[in-house]
Amino acid sequence: MPEPGSEFERIAALVSSLPKGEGVIVGPGDDAAVLRTRDGRDLVATTDTFVEGRHFRRDVLTPAETGTRLAAANLSDLAAMAAEPRWALLSLVVPTSWTHAECMMLERSCARALAGDGVAIVGGNLASGEGPFSATLTLLGEVERGAALTRGGARPGDLVAVTGWPGSAAAFLAVALSSDPPSRSRMDHGLAERVVAPPSRVALARVLAQAGGVHAAIDISDGLAADLAHVCRASGVGARILEAALPADAALEAASRVLSASAGQERGARAADELTRLQLGASDDYELLLMVEPAKWMEYERLARECAVPLTHIGEMTAGGSCALVTWLGTEIALDRPGWDHFKSR
Amino acid sequence: MPEPGSEFERIAALVSSLPKGEGVIVGPGDDAAVLRTRDGRDLVATTDTFVEGRHFRRDVLTPAETGTRLAAANLSDLAAMAAEPRWALLSLVVPTSWTHAECMMLERSCARALAGDGVAIVGGNLASGEGPFSATLTLLGEVERGAALTRGGARPGDLVAVTGWPGSAAAFLAVALSSDPPSRSRMDHGLAERVVAPPSRVALARVLAQAGGVHAAIDISDGLAADLAHVCRASGVGARILEAALPADAALEAASRVLSASAGQERGARAADELTRLQLGASDDYELLLMVEPAKWMEYERLARECAVPLTHIGEMTAGGSCALVTWLGTEIALDRPGWDHFKSR
Repeated sequence: MPEPGSEFERIAALVSSLPKGEGVIVGPGDDAAVLRTRDGRDLVATTDTFVEGRHFRRDVLTPAETGTRLAAANLSDLAAMAAEPRWALLSLVVPTSWTHAECMMLERSCARALAGDGVAIVGGNLASGEGPFSATLTLLGEVERGAALTRGGARPGDLVAVTGWPGSAAAFLAVALSSDPPSRSRMDHGLAERVVAPPSRVALARVLAQAGGVHAAIDISDGLAADLAHVCRASGVGARILEAALPADAALEAASRVLSASAGQERGARAADELTRLQLGASDDYELLLMVEPAKWMEYERLARECAVPLTHIGEMTAGGSCALVTWLGTEIALDRPGWDHFKSR
Repeated sequence: MPEPGSEFERIAALVSSLPKGEGVIVGPGDDAAVLRTRDGRDLVATTDTFVEGRHFRRDVLTPAETGTRLAAANLSDLAAMAAEPRWALLSLVVPTSWTHAECMMLERSCARALAGDGVAIVGGNLASGEGPFSATLTLLGEVERGAALTRGGARPGDLVAVTGWPGSAAAFLAVALSSDPPSRSRMDHGLAERVVAPPSRVALARVLAQAGGVHAAIDISDGLAADLAHVCRASGVGARILEAALPADAALEAASRVLSASAGQERGARAADELTRLQLGASDDYELLLMVEPAKWMEYERLARECAVPLTHIGEMTAGGSCALVTWLGTEIALDRPGWDHFKSR
């Protein structure tokens, strides 16, 4: 049950509008793409799917913004491996509730965001299908042999650092949904901007990895606490994160005040709790969590400044197997158990 | 809006049950997979999506059969490039109408079919989403530099050859849907077998490409006429196909009789027309269409016999730009125009 005509024409239309990538021996339009990695490099591959209503909402994000975020989600996974992104394959399942123009906007903005990191779309698939729209992007890159960062290399004593402002995506969504119908009118512009067009962390990851001493990395698209737990499990170590060290800027703080006020809670202490939950909890931020050599911290800070990426030291890895949050009050809360986010309500 | 717990556990469960592939430096479970192609080879990448109700029906195929066919669809694309398949990424969007067990059966049968050609699943994604089930498989392989077969190399005078029994998938579906509810009870077992577990053409494609003289190749998942037109367009040549040469075995002939009888048509001439429509029209067969050097035909026939793959000479490429079918009666019908399949009803 193929749909040859429309699919062929739409792929051709999209492809003719895109830059041809380097290392593309056979591009889109054949049964498969033929690609050439640089000598002495390994291939790196990741894939991510966005399903309408689950990973994005059309009443909160435009199709173009969703395309940009789909690219960012995958670029972030390659950044977490310190890989250089190169090629992508994009597959869409499109219901009749989406117009051709909306679809093209999503595709083009995804392609544009990928092109920002030197990535060309070399293949894909278009299918119609009732139900929610979904888009699957597979991103291919390359990394110098043996140089890929993984989740498994963290050591006790490593500093834990994070890029950007974790919790921003959760804050953006919660603030938008606190209006009915959902609206961005109560949203700080800076917060919206970093969520609808997440900055790439690829360049920073590459220079940090080249500097050496980065023992583990992960992207925090599951949320800081959950992804820290993944590293602890994969590396067989523990972690201690300081609540007081978690980064927040005025935009994220403002969002936490809006949310605690909406919830009818007292301002002040409650807004601070709300902020910590945003920073650590489920949030689709395409930021990196890094476990690094303490002696090189000043060099990493300098490199991050040169890349114009906020990089914050938030804790350290420990020999014990547990992930703990040290609160403002000095008490320790286990982060790797369900329910940690009710820590102050108890 | 991630689903970390269930996704993580299900990927872990699937992965632990699969063979670890060769050349896998970092396997599933990290942000991305790290893979190593052999020296001097290019990477080959393809992707295909199956959407329930559009690319497969649950009242006709079991989840396990659908998984096998998804693998076959992608393997066929790499066979058409004469590439060696190596790694895959599998992404599922699963509605609540699918049980965990059904999902696992699809995944496992897909993995098993891939493993038959040496492919390991190295990543993927699981998301829940209402609407139809969909599965996107991205298959990566490698090919000796400069050795990939494409659609663009056909020359006038090339022989046109096809593997297997084109039209089988269309016949399978049409016979199943001619009962209400759909049923395979009127289906020849051999026909069903080749559709629910399509044999891989990778080994044949590799030995033919090594033998040299294969100028173009395409897989006929859009149907023989449509994919022949793709080659003609990409190569800037024409083709002449002989109706009398199109391959059919007893199973496919039986299906064409069942279908023409169901349609209330006369037997005999009408069944023959039905057969030709099946052979040339839209049909998800994972077979290869090859444009080859005439002088080497006997060698190709021998190689196909050694691989136990039916390979049939069905026509030749021409200098003119059109794709034509020479009927049993000696008349020529243009295959690259809409409506060719009504050729005998006129």
